[in-house]
Amino acid sequence: MAVNVAVVGATGAVGEEFLRILESRKFPIKELRLLASKRSVGKKIKFCGVNYVVQELTKSSFRGIKIALFSAGSSISKEFVPYAIESGAVCVDNSSAFRMDDDVPLVVPEVNAQEIAKHKGVIANPNCSTIQMVVALKPIHDAARIKRIVVSTYQAVSGAGLKAVDELQKETASVLAGKTDFKRNLFPHQIAFNVLPQIPQSNAFLPNGYTSEEMKMVNETQKIMGDKNIRITATTARVPVVRGHSESVNIETERKITASEVKKLLSKAPGVKLVDDPANQVYPLANMAAGRDEVFVGRIREDESIDNGINMWIVSDNIRKGAALNAIQIAEKLL
Amino acid sequence: MAVNVAVVGATGAVGEEFLRILESRKFPIKELRLLASKRSVGKKIKFCGVNYVVQELTKSSFRGIKIALFSAGSSISKEFVPYAIESGAVCVDNSSAFRMDDDVPLVVPEVNAQEIAKHKGVIANPNCSTIQMVVALKPIHDAARIKRIVVSTYQAVSGAGLKAVDELQKETASVLAGKTDFKRNLFPHQIAFNVLPQIPQSNAFLPNGYTSEEMKMVNETQKIMGDKNIRITATTARVPVVRGHSESVNIETERKITASEVKKLLSKAPGVKLVDDPANQVYPLANMAAGRDEVFVGRIREDESIDNGINMWIVSDNIRKGAALNAIQIAEKLL
Repeated sequence: MAVNVAVVGATGAVGEEFLRILESRKFPIKELRLLASKRSVGKKIKFCGVNYVVQELTKSSFRGIKIALFSAGSSISKEFVPYAIESGAVCVDNSSAFRMDDDVPLVVPEVNAQEIAKHKGVIANPNCSTIQMVVALKPIHDAARIKRIVVSTYQAVSGAGLKAVDELQKETASVLAGKTDFKRNLFPHQIAFNVLPQIPQSNAFLPNGYTSEEMKMVNETQKIMGDKNIRITATTARVPVVRGHSESVNIETERKITASEVKKLLSKAPGVKLVDDPANQVYPLANMAAGRDEVFVGRIREDESIDNGINMWIVSDNIRKGAALNAIQIAEKLL
Repeated sequence: MAVNVAVVGATGAVGEEFLRILESRKFPIKELRLLASKRSVGKKIKFCGVNYVVQELTKSSFRGIKIALFSAGSSISKEFVPYAIESGAVCVDNSSAFRMDDDVPLVVPEVNAQEIAKHKGVIANPNCSTIQMVVALKPIHDAARIKRIVVSTYQAVSGAGLKAVDELQKETASVLAGKTDFKRNLFPHQIAFNVLPQIPQSNAFLPNGYTSEEMKMVNETQKIMGDKNIRITATTARVPVVRGHSESVNIETERKITASEVKKLLSKAPGVKLVDDPANQVYPLANMAAGRDEVFVGRIREDESIDNGINMWIVSDNIRKGAALNAIQIAEKLL
């Protein structure tokens, strides 16, 4: 049965992807309402061959809406999700506003779809770097119980939005042209041909020395996996890649699991594509994942520094499975 | 007292850097002999204002040479180091040819300079990714004994030579211009706006699933630190950066050491520059390290997933401290 759907933040990187995925998955939409801030009002966006006009997001934007997909940042979600709920909509929120609230399900459908039913009007979509990691780790946790995760990320700039992509591309062209006086708008340092061990680009650091992105990986992983005993430490870094987060993930398990057992598990795991043939130089790559739905896993090998350890390389499209696709999968389960 | 010096591989990325550093450090050179393969013979290279002509590397190239700096790959070192020793030269070899030989010292002067005296004609220069890590970790090992290291690297393409830099730059320009049909010569996959979890670019993988680069970090670290009990696991990846390797390093120590104790130690450690002021978005960066001598360390924080753990971000110029500078520091100690 078709429903009325609102997209909040329709002109952003994730908003654009929401529309592409709703269209390609033939999501049963009766009425589509595209919402954004004042400065995007009037902009036309094509969906299934029809032009839609972007409307201003207001308290009364959600009248008649059944499902509201939010991706316009935390403060917008905090302000407008309550109005959407009041109007009778169920919200799938891509921001971090409600993720750690006890009464808000934080869901990756391949991992904890059962939580969706517990919602009270809003379901939180996890952070991109967390989603792809838990999709790959859940089957291993079920089989051998993960005790500890040490993760280092190589994250694409599109996680910081379309302006960040523009900044990387312009800066890269400047550096190639031998210019050094380019103006920076978003990133605190040069991102072209560089690596920034800071995400997000502002107000990143917490009193314990970690960034908020790093602590999201710790806290969200425990919540999604439903296991507070998993110990996690993370280092997150931005690399000059447009799309596709890569992650170097080291795990220690309670029970011994071999690399070939992990490969076997992941070869049939939901949402996972095993890409692991090093002899032929085949392993997950950001440019392979871009535009694809799966979480790609490879370079699976036993960690020889401990008894029960595994190293792996996990890559996924941060805008698709890391954001828009995961939210729409949640919406599909809602229907 | 000035000595006769030969540079083998004078036209490569490290060879060029050898000359820059010999000049800037006023290394006491009586005669300089630039050696390379046949196809570079006759090429002129300026050193201290004088043009030198590149000569062909042959068995008899080392007559009268006191110090021979090798950086032309393993097979060249294996073939020609014996002739250099026969001629009475002491070789500092940047290749992996002799690094793990029991009777060859593997030296990072800040860590194990005392090993230099034990040489029998050749001293091995470690792998770039290993050098910067052990410079930062030695003071911590001395203070709290490191039990285990989990490292993930973000390595610059210059580690694969000047052709790799050219490939990255040309490929990047092609991608920016919207072309997808660019020809690849060196890397097995697109390196522009991508991350490759494979180093080196060919014949990388060993039977245990690790790359040779990863196992160098394991074996060389134990040898340089003089401690076989340090457990190490590594994931090495190439990022679209020209110069400067970044490393996300997680350590577990035997005795508790706090983040502020680590910072205090590293603020006075030889060869280390502490760059750690996250509140002001100050931390080590590849483009900050490029062309500099120090190993930059920052993002030092306690790993909350174990009792005695520290995370840190270590960056250095892979061609300078990671190769040419370290070799010349060894040569200086030899004199």
